[in-house]
Amino acid sequence: MTETVAEVAGAAGSRVTGDLYAEVQTFYARQMRRVDALDIEGFADTFTEDGCVVHAGGQRQSGRAEMVAGMRANLPRYRGVAVRHWFDHLIIDVDADDPDTVRVSYYTLVTLTDAEGKVSFQPTFTVEDELVRRDGRLLTRERVIHRDEPAAV
Amino acid sequence: MTETVAEVAGAAGSRVTGDLYAEVQTFYARQMRRVDALDIEGFADTFTEDGCVVHAGGQRQSGRAEMVAGMRANLPRYRGVAVRHWFDHLIIDVDADDPDTVRVSYYTLVTLTDAEGKVSFQPTFTVEDELVRRDGRLLTRERVIHRDEPAAV
Amino acid sequence: MTETVAEVAGAAGSRVTGDLYAEVQTFYARQMRRVDALDIEGFADTFTEDGCVVHAGGQRQSGRAEMVAGMRANLPRYRGVAVRHWFDHLIIDVDADDPDTVRVSYYTLVTLTDAEGKVSFQPTFTVEDELVRRDGRLLTRERVIHRDEPAAV
Repeated sequence: MTETVAEVAGAAGSRVTGDLYAEVQTFYARQMRRVDALDIEGFADTFTEDGCVVHAGGQRQSGRAEMVAGMRANLPRYRGVAVRHWFDHLIIDVDADDPDTVRVSYYTLVTLTDAEGKVSFQPTFTVEDELVRRDGRLLTRERVIHRDEPAAV
Repeated sequence: MTETVAEVAGAAGSRVTGDLYAEVQTFYARQMRRVDALDIEGFADTFTEDGCVVHAGGQRQSGRAEMVAGMRANLPRYRGVAVRHWFDHLIIDVDADDPDTVRVSYYTLVTLTDAEGKVSFQPTFTVEDELVRRDGRLLTRERVIHRDEPAAV
Repeated sequence: MTETVAEVAGAAGSRVTGDLYAEVQTFYARQMRRVDALDIEGFADTFTEDGCVVHAGGQRQSGRAEMVAGMRANLPRYRGVAVRHWFDHLIIDVDADDPDTVRVSYYTLVTLTDAEGKVSFQPTFTVEDELVRRDGRLLTRERVIHRDEPAAV
């Protein structure tokens, strides 16, 4: 599992700029405002028309229409709770051949706060996104969600 | 609840720079060091003299003196626990007419760790701040704290 | 505990750039991917050869070999759980005399997710790092971990 020094140096070569870091973080801040408000159509609009999500269980939703239907079916689980997605440890890589394609990996923690203010947690996840810039605006083209599993000891 | 593409494009127009993103994050890192150390006067000093905080319950504290008194009255609830405020998903907008006025929205999670190391959580909040730059230094002029409520399903 | 305005202005004088902020965040994102994967050698490789860690209990590990041995002895506590380290509120200071030495302070929350998806928490910590840039790549030279204690009320 150890990367060689050369691989690490290579990773450092594609160093992300501060401006792109802020742009990607802001994109997610806006996208999560929508999903946490259960604004399903608004959330789907942050994906490309042909965008897809591969859930941790392996289920794949392709295209905004399928995404919207899937999220609508899941709404009852959020009845009576405020859901919030928290991100951390973004790794941002611009495609070497296409500056408008950006791959991002990040950690996610999901809190559910009920009406009395009690906070509970969903399992933690690691997510891999492919973002594209269209008309100057970032959109998610693909999202693959991995449930965090115990590492081999 | 869906923003139009034009509105999103408008939002993208006021794109935050990496330098400002880092400056705002650093401002909050220092401000939270103070509040979490229960350094009430030091925390109040990160507000303008006429700064105000509107708490989730609707209570409004105006000016540093009122803020200090309010926090001092709340100190007993932090006896025996280490409080830490965690932020995420900052959305930073520079005022179109005044580059020294910056509006920031962010998520907050608050942990309380007791002497045995047991962690408990306060309800999650979303905060809207107005920051101003005075003599090159950011200060909070207004803070409005919203308790996260279940969205309509 | 109140800093004077001059001290705060001094802090603002060594303002971190957006590029460095993104670089340091990315360094930690990669370093935490390794520690959370229990990739002990890969984690040790993100330290200088003579790097050291001072744990919250006061125990000091000096050099990569001692670090690897210490982590290997601790592996059983992570059997059957996915560990994730979450960071927040980085304060980044470049050494005034050496631009390749960077001091960073940050908050850490550690989650443990078991096979059923239940999340538990370790106590919160505040960490002080000294990073150095070697051949263009950041490495940790020293890490001091402080368990968060209740502040005096």
